Amino acid sequence: MQTYIDTYKNMRKRLNAYGYSMWVLEWDLETDHPTGAVDYRAEQIEVLSNEIYALETDKKYNKAIDYLYENIDKLDDLLKREIKKVQKELRLIKKMPKEEYIDYQVLLSKSTSIWSKARENDDFEMFLPILEKIVAYQRKIVRYLQTPELKGYDVLLDLYEEGMTTKEYDVFFEDLRNELVPFVLTATSGKKPLSRKLTKNLFPLYKQKQFNMYLTDVFKFDLTHGVLRTSAHPFTSNFSSFDVRITTRYIENSIESAIFSTIHEMGHGIYEQNINPELKDTNLATGSSMGIHESQSRMYENMIGRSYAFWEAHFDHLKEIFDKELKNVTLLEFYQYINRAERSLVRTEADELTYPLHIMVRYEIEKLLISGKLKAKDVAKRWKRLYQQYVGVRPKDDKDGVLQDIHWAAGSFGYFPTYALGSAYAAQIYYAMNKDFNVENAISDNKIEKINAWLKEHIHQYGQSKSPKELMLLATGEPFNSKYYIEYLKRKFSS
Amino acid sequence: MQTYIDTYKNMRKRLNAYGYSMWVLEWDLETDHPTGAVDYRAEQIEVLSNEIYALETDKKYNKAIDYLYENIDKLDDLLKREIKKVQKELRLIKKMPKEEYIDYQVLLSKSTSIWSKARENDDFEMFLPILEKIVAYQRKIVRYLQTPELKGYDVLLDLYEEGMTTKEYDVFFEDLRNELVPFVLTATSGKKPLSRKLTKNLFPLYKQKQFNMYLTDVFKFDLTHGVLRTSAHPFTSNFSSFDVRITTRYIENSIESAIFSTIHEMGHGIYEQNINPELKDTNLATGSSMGIHESQSRMYENMIGRSYAFWEAHFDHLKEIFDKELKNVTLLEFYQYINRAERSLVRTEADELTYPLHIMVRYEIEKLLISGKLKAKDVAKRWKRLYQQYVGVRPKDDKDGVLQDIHWAAGSFGYFPTYALGSAYAAQIYYAMNKDFNVENAISDNKIEKINAWLKEHIHQYGQSKSPKELMLLATGEPFNSKYYIEYLKRKFSS
Repeated sequence: MQTYIDTYKNMRKRLNAYGYSMWVLEWDLETDHPTGAVDYRAEQIEVLSNEIYALETDKKYNKAIDYLYENIDKLDDLLKREIKKVQKELRLIKKMPKEEYIDYQVLLSKSTSIWSKARENDDFEMFLPILEKIVAYQRKIVRYLQTPELKGYDVLLDLYEEGMTTKEYDVFFEDLRNELVPFVLTATSGKKPLSRKLTKNLFPLYKQKQFNMYLTDVFKFDLTHGVLRTSAHPFTSNFSSFDVRITTRYIENSIESAIFSTIHEMGHGIYEQNINPELKDTNLATGSSMGIHESQSRMYENMIGRSYAFWEAHFDHLKEIFDKELKNVTLLEFYQYINRAERSLVRTEADELTYPLHIMVRYEIEKLLISGKLKAKDVAKRWKRLYQQYVGVRPKDDKDGVLQDIHWAAGSFGYFPTYALGSAYAAQIYYAMNKDFNVENAISDNKIEKINAWLKEHIHQYGQSKSPKELMLLATGEPFNSKYYIEYLKRKFSS
Repeated sequence: MQTYIDTYKNMRKRLNAYGYSMWVLEWDLETDHPTGAVDYRAEQIEVLSNEIYALETDKKYNKAIDYLYENIDKLDDLLKREIKKVQKELRLIKKMPKEEYIDYQVLLSKSTSIWSKARENDDFEMFLPILEKIVAYQRKIVRYLQTPELKGYDVLLDLYEEGMTTKEYDVFFEDLRNELVPFVLTATSGKKPLSRKLTKNLFPLYKQKQFNMYLTDVFKFDLTHGVLRTSAHPFTSNFSSFDVRITTRYIENSIESAIFSTIHEMGHGIYEQNINPELKDTNLATGSSMGIHESQSRMYENMIGRSYAFWEAHFDHLKEIFDKELKNVTLLEFYQYINRAERSLVRTEADELTYPLHIMVRYEIEKLLISGKLKAKDVAKRWKRLYQQYVGVRPKDDKDGVLQDIHWAAGSFGYFPTYALGSAYAAQIYYAMNKDFNVENAISDNKIEKINAWLKEHIHQYGQSKSPKELMLLATGEPFNSKYYIEYLKRKFSS
C-alpha cells in the first residue's frame, strides 16, 4: 500500500511542477506575450504537452491509482478525495482510444479560432460543421464516461458541478421560469432616466486605476500573494493559494466596467487565497466547483459591490477621485445606475436580474443537443425563439446571438448552468452568513474582512476537499434551495 | 550516424521546451511574481531542475553527443558548431562528481542573498567565507575543464568570450592603462557647470514612458516580437528571435536614466531579434558571446544614443514632451549633461569614459585570485588600492567598493572583462560600418534602420554560428584592435 501511495505522491509532485509551468505560460500569453511569437510558443507547448501526457499515462502511476482506487476505503479522508478526483480526471484519457483523444484535442485547438472568425463575420453556417463535430464528440464522451448512476447530459453536468444532475437543474430553472420571466418583463418595462454624467462622461484611466487599487485594499485582496493587472478580458488565474492573479479591463467611457470586473475577480481570488495552505501538495488546492466559485465572485460583485451599503461607505472617495466627472451626481443616482435592469442580448453584459435567463436559454439547448432532440443546424433558430420567450428580446443576428460565447467552441458543455447556480448559491450563503452577523453593517462600516473571514471558515478553506453539496450543507445548514435567490432578486429589483 | 543525429535533435527539442519554460518562469519572477509565493515557486523549480538534469545526463543523449563529437568532421558546419557548444556546456556536469556539482549549485543558490545582506550592512567579512568557497570552486572548475591549450584563468575567460585569453586581455588592458588612465585624470579635473533644470528637476513618469515608447519606434525595436516593461533593474530576456523582452527603470529625478537604459537594452534586443530565424531549432539562436552582445548594447547606448547627431534629430521631441521641465535648456547643454565624465565609484553608474577602468580593477583581481597570488581576504584592500590607481578615487566603504557587484557572488568569474571588451569591439565595428555609409548622417536623419540592417548583415544574423573572433574579422576586416576604442574615447572627451 505505502509503495503505491509513494508512487502516486511522487508523480503528483512532478505533474504539479509541470502544471505550474503551463500555468505561468498561460498567464504570460494573456499578459506579455508578443503576437509574433505565437507559433514558436506553440511548438514548445506541444513538446511539453507530450511530456505531460507521457507522465499521466505512465503505467506505474496508473497502476498505483488503480490500486488505491480499489482500496479507497483504507485511505485517509484527504487521500480518498484526491484519488477519486484524479481517477475521474484520467477516465477520459483511459477510455478514449488514443488516436481519437488526440484528434479531439487537435479539433479543440482549432475550433475557437474558427468560432472567432464566424462570429466576426456573423456567420453561423461557418461555425456549424465544427459545432456538429464537437457535439458528436461530446456524445461520445458521455458514452465513455457514463456509469450506472450517471447517464446522458448528467455526465457533463457532473464534470463542472459535482453531483448536479438534469433533475435538479430542471427544478431550479423551472422555478426561475415561473417566478422570474414574468417578473423581469414587468421590472424592465419603462425606462428610468439616468444621469447624463454617468452615461456620457469620459473617466480617465489613471483615475480608474487609482480607484481599483483602492478596491484591493477595501476587499483585503492580498497583494503579497496576488497580482492585479490589465488584460483584454478580465480573468482570475491561480496556482496554489500563494499566487493568485486577477486582471481587469479599463474602458474610458464607463465608470463601472473596471470596478465590477475587479470586484468579481477579487471574489474568485479571495476564495483561492483563503484555501488552507496545507492542501498545497495535494490536487485539492483550488475552489470546490464552478458553481461554488461563481457564487463567491457574484456575491462580491453584486450582493456586496452593487449594494447601497457599499456605496454609502465608498461613494465619497469615488467622487474625490472623479472630482470633475461625478460633480453633482448623488449616491442614489449612482446606485440606480449600477443596478439598472434591461432586456438585453449579451450574457457578459447582462445585469444581475436578467442574467440567469440568459443561462436558461443555453441550458435548454445543451440538454436537447446532447440528448439528440435538437440538431446542431437548428441551434441558431432555437436560440432566437428562446431569447424571445425568456428574456423578452429577439436577436437580429447570430453575432450577438448564438455565436456570442466561446464555451461550445471550446467543448465546454455542462458549464453554463453553473453560472446561474452560482448566483443562486450566493443568495443562500449570504442569507446564512447574515444569521451570524449583520452583513450590511459590515459592508457599510468598511469591514469586508468580516465577510472574508466567515467565508473562509465556512467555505474557502476547504478547497476541493469537500464537494459543493457538502459545502452548501455545511455553510447554510440545508441543501441548495433556489428560493433565496428568487426572493433576493425580487426584493432588490422591486424597489 | 543518422540515428545519433536523430537522438540528439529529438532530445534538444525536448530540452529546448524545458528551457523555454524556465525562461518564462524567470521573466515572471522579475515582473509579476508576488513576494509571498517565492517558496512555493522554489519547490516547483526544484522539481523541474531535476527533470532537466535527468534529461541532460541521459545516457543515450550523452552517447550520441560523444559519438558526434568524435566524428565531428563528418558533420555539416552548423551541426559541428552545435555539438562543440553542447559538448562544452556539458563538460562540467560530466567531469565534476555529482555530489560536488550539487553542493556547488546549492552554494550558488544561497550566495547571492548572503552577498546582498553583506552589501546592505557594508560588511565584507560577512561575505568573505562565501567568497572563499566560490573561489575554491572556481579553481576546481578550472582544473576540471582545462585542456592542453587552455589553462588557469583562461578556462574561465573562454566560457564567456570564446577564444579570449589572459594574453590578449593583458595587451588590451595595458593599452587602456597607458592611454586612458592619464587621459581620464586630465579630462575629469575641473567641473563644468550643468543646467540646474537637468540636475534638479522632476520628470513625471508618464512623460518618461511616453518618450521611451517613442524610442522603440526610433530604433525600430519590433514590438510584435518584443516587450518593453518596467522592472527594478533593466535587463534583456529572450528565447529565440521571436520573443525578445527588455525592461527599463524610471527614476523621477533623472531624465536620462530610463532613456539610456532603454536604448542599451534595445541594443541587446535588436541583436536577438535580428538572428536568422532558421537557427531557432538549434542551440545557436542567441548572441555570439558576452563581448559581442555588449558591443551592440554599448554602441546603441553610447555611440548612437549619446551622440550629438542623435539629439539633433530628437531633442525637439523631448522638449515637446517635457515642455515645462526642459524650458530654456539647449541642445548643447543637454549633450554635455549626458556626456559628463567623472571619477566615480560605482560601475553601473559610471560614464562612458571611465567605465573600462572600473572593469580593469576587477580583471586584475580575478586574475590574481584564480592564480592564487591573491587571497580572498585581501580582495577588499586591493580593490581600494586599484581604484585609487586607475580611476583616481578611493572607496571609503565596501558597500560601494568590493561589494557593489553581484557577479562574484553568483560564481561568474571571467565575465567582467567582456564589458570593457564589448565597448572596444563597438568602436571597431562602428569604424568599419562608417566606411560603408556615413553613420552620423543616418543617425541625424533618423534612419537607424540603416544601422540595424548593416549590423544584421554583418553580425546579428549569425547568432552563435560564428565565434566572436570570426565575427570581428568578418565585420571589420581585421582582428580585434583596441586602438579604435581609445581613439574614439579621446576624440569624444577631448572636446
